[in-house]
Amino acid sequence: MSAVRQFAYKGMQVTHLSGAFGSKVSLRKMSTNSKPVLYSFWSSSCSWRLRIALALKGIDYDIKATSLSKTANEHVYTSEYREVNPMQKVPSLKIDGHTLCDSVAIMHYLEETRPQPPLLPQDPVKRAKVREIVELICSGIQPLQNITVQEHLGNDLGLEFAQHWIIRGFQGLEKVVSQSAGKFCVGDELSMADICLVPQVRNARRYKIDLSPYPTVVRLYQEVQEMEAFKSTHPSTQPDCPPEFLKK
Amino acid sequence: MSAVRQFAYKGMQVTHLSGAFGSKVSLRKMSTNSKPVLYSFWSSSCSWRLRIALALKGIDYDIKATSLSKTANEHVYTSEYREVNPMQKVPSLKIDGHTLCDSVAIMHYLEETRPQPPLLPQDPVKRAKVREIVELICSGIQPLQNITVQEHLGNDLGLEFAQHWIIRGFQGLEKVVSQSAGKFCVGDELSMADICLVPQVRNARRYKIDLSPYPTVVRLYQEVQEMEAFKSTHPSTQPDCPPEFLKK
Repeated sequence: MSAVRQFAYKGMQVTHLSGAFGSKVSLRKMSTNSKPVLYSFWSSSCSWRLRIALALKGIDYDIKATSLSKTANEHVYTSEYREVNPMQKVPSLKIDGHTLCDSVAIMHYLEETRPQPPLLPQDPVKRAKVREIVELICSGIQPLQNITVQEHLGNDLGLEFAQHWIIRGFQGLEKVVSQSAGKFCVGDELSMADICLVPQVRNARRYKIDLSPYPTVVRLYQEVQEMEAFKSTHPSTQPDCPPEFLKK
Repeated sequence: MSAVRQFAYKGMQVTHLSGAFGSKVSLRKMSTNSKPVLYSFWSSSCSWRLRIALALKGIDYDIKATSLSKTANEHVYTSEYREVNPMQKVPSLKIDGHTLCDSVAIMHYLEETRPQPPLLPQDPVKRAKVREIVELICSGIQPLQNITVQEHLGNDLGLEFAQHWIIRGFQGLEKVVSQSAGKFCVGDELSMADICLVPQVRNARRYKIDLSPYPTVVRLYQEVQEMEAFKSTHPSTQPDCPPEFLKK
């Protein structure tokens, strides 16, 4: 429990520090009882997406570490967690008296209930571009390289399969963002697209993908990685991160 | 070109007939030059999603048949189509002077630029549930069973892989919709969730999945399959549908 408390405290700090859009983010007032609970796994890219979004929105929360490994104490295959999320995936979020599932669905919920700072542009064509990039990553790349799929295929084939689809996806992604990007993925407004891009680039690195053919993707990754909302939610900062991967 | 014209004519008819929400759908006035162009493949579930959405919104369009097979005349791997959609996927839509990609991103664009009839509920929690189901299907199931992935893995392994992830996904989907459904996937309002569910059920049938463990999913499929917007856009009605699969 001390890790949870420590993280919640760090979450508060994030709230104060996050000014990713250059605007001051006000801290949402919540009683202890209504504080959101995030079911998250430290190394899951989908969980990291949502941690970034929560940090950008200045939403404080408690974390309930939920592993993708059946050997962990609390994991997605327990009957208890299946009641939370029948797809046995992370993240899920208890908030406003509801339990919400899926990182993309939850980011939209946060955007619609807590519009500031925005994670989508106002212009519908730009919004479509942001969502195209979100789906390119979240349906076009991530599902084909996640750990569950790799385990199903077996070690060697699984890794080769993951690498194949990351490379194919990054070829498309580079072309898309080379046309849409300004400072961020779509113009100069930070959005859900950047939130999805960063954890996917980390995955590509973990799976030893040569990123040199994707200079725009790498530049966009570098653009935001030092922002507090991205840094403070990095897998290596998480309470369930194994000691050997913890940020010193 | 006659198939295109015929389809466009049928699209007009759909427009007049579609009253899926019980409200009269007005026909959008467009000059011939500005008529939207849909890049679609008859058997692609992602293309079918968008055809349903366009029919429900009463949007007339021309269709540009774009195959997922490299042996076709116009296919997603041509350099011409790669300029349309760098991910080499269908559907894409030329509309309002822009080229948009990805079925989920485009459905949202249509919803934001042509709000009637709505494809999302008003309530943010219900919207989150719709989007959870949309992502469950569009990122959790479809990418793991599509024809490109099956071809990559080879015939036998590809089919087994597809079946595995459809079954795993449908187990989650059944649990989710058994809690959220009224007449439709989320309460009594037809939404993007139903639009995504129907083509995925067709895919499950094509891949010989026993659907009896998923009675709510089957009921929701049956609920809408006779609606004009679903029937008139069915793969078997498409101009690029091979003769042996054409609806008599």
